[in-house]
Amino acid sequence: MEEKIYEKVKEHIYKNDKLFEFLGAEITDMGEGLAEVEMEVKENHLNAAKICQGGVIFTLADLAFALASNSYGTLALAINANITYIKPVNLGEKLVARAQEFHKGKNLATYHITVFKKDTKEKVAFFEGMVYRLDKPFI
Amino acid sequence: MEEKIYEKVKEHIYKNDKLFEFLGAEITDMGEGLAEVEMEVKENHLNAAKICQGGVIFTLADLAFALASNSYGTLALAINANITYIKPVNLGEKLVARAQEFHKGKNLATYHITVFKKDTKEKVAFFEGMVYRLDKPFI
Amino acid sequence: MEEKIYEKVKEHIYKNDKLFEFLGAEITDMGEGLAEVEMEVKENHLNAAKICQGGVIFTLADLAFALASNSYGTLALAINANITYIKPVNLGEKLVARAQEFHKGKNLATYHITVFKKDTKEKVAFFEGMVYRLDKPFI
Amino acid sequence: MEEKIYEKVKEHIYKNDKLFEFLGAEITDMGEGLAEVEMEVKENHLNAAKICQGGVIFTLADLAFALASNSYGTLALAINANITYIKPVNLGEKLVARAQEFHKGKNLATYHITVFKKDTKEKVAFFEGMVYRLDKPFI
Repeated sequence: MEEKIYEKVKEHIYKNDKLFEFLGAEITDMGEGLAEVEMEVKENHLNAAKICQGGVIFTLADLAFALASNSYGTLALAINANITYIKPVNLGEKLVARAQEFHKGKNLATYHITVFKKDTKEKVAFFEGMVYRLDKPFI
Repeated sequence: MEEKIYEKVKEHIYKNDKLFEFLGAEITDMGEGLAEVEMEVKENHLNAAKICQGGVIFTLADLAFALASNSYGTLALAINANITYIKPVNLGEKLVARAQEFHKGKNLATYHITVFKKDTKEKVAFFEGMVYRLDKPFI
Repeated sequence: MEEKIYEKVKEHIYKNDKLFEFLGAEITDMGEGLAEVEMEVKENHLNAAKICQGGVIFTLADLAFALASNSYGTLALAINANITYIKPVNLGEKLVARAQEFHKGKNLATYHITVFKKDTKEKVAFFEGMVYRLDKPFI
Repeated sequence: MEEKIYEKVKEHIYKNDKLFEFLGAEITDMGEGLAEVEMEVKENHLNAAKICQGGVIFTLADLAFALASNSYGTLALAINANITYIKPVNLGEKLVARAQEFHKGKNLATYHITVFKKDTKEKVAFFEGMVYRLDKPFI
């Protein structure tokens, strides 16, 4: 049985995107136009108010966005992202970022990523990302 | 001579926000409603395409945003951020994020952060951030 | 039987917001945290490229946003809106804007509005709106 | 003396974009990558709270955005816009929307539009707009 394109993209991104290591993130779902990534908030993710830094939440969503938007095997470059923060996250809490395709056109595509707490399902953030799609292979 | 409030905020954030360490970032300017932060792109900041990960650029801008929005000594919580990516950044390049206040109201304030390459001054990203201002001391 | 609060809000907004008249828009659904508005694109809604002007699409979404965010009977002020355009709309086409609450907190709330073509269901735009909620009656 | 391309674009948009008529807007400045548009808030621009409707403010900024982004004579399609509202506007007040180019690339360009009150210079809104640039003439 042949490996799906999105499986190759998943392995390539997981192995090469260095932010997975910093976040301690794992990919928990992946398909065409969708992806899910999880992490646990550690000491090195905290801001001066002792809650999870906004850039950490953004980066988790961004990993799901990168996976989903490149899942077809052609290169997608992020051009805009808009994040709304709903609720603070504490040390030790587990976060899930789930990316779903809102629309894919020839040159542009848009993804919606919801970040929530794994245990309580409470919404943490909403991230909308737009990519410019190139007609060249991702890997 | 008494220390300014924004100097205390600067020291507190620099010492306690763990993302300074991950980015290897330094604060190069700070005042009421403004801040500037710099970093150099290292191996651990790269994505699978071997360029600086979008979350790293966002986080650098976010640090400048946090410094500027908390500079008055009262607590400011980020509620929304919108980032537009202009140009990719390579390993070894130095980035500067400069935050300036666009408007400060009683409950809400907005900051504009421009990220550019230190050497060439080329624009890398534009980040607009909004905070909800609490009537309580930052530190 | 007593009239629901959201019914009063609906009547008040429909009667007093002058943009309903310019768009020729009708309210087709309304409840707590949700609303749907429809219109048909007329000559006076076109831009120089002879397609529906972006401000018209935004305003239709904005009416659904205003209805949904004020539906609890307490005043909600728009502070930010982000719109992504998916597909152009031609003269004579019918548009639907459907607003749903993403999150409602004490002081802030966020709404997602999808604009689509009534006949084909094709997505036209996605609008995310944030409000600041005041502790005072809408009407 | 030959007419500049941006002068032709200005005349074409002013004559054909029907929203100029609804807003009662005039173009007060125009050049490569920049434009300024003005209007006075009338009865038919008000929302249910008797202040200027958000869609009206957005549309004024959008006209300046359309002028600036099409000023080179090649077609630019709006793909995203983000607006932050700073201050309410009353009946009879005059608004100015000034668009400036933040960055112009081969396929994408970004514009910053500031909306302010003509008399007091108070900021009313900030609008960031992104276009997809086509390699075909605007007119």
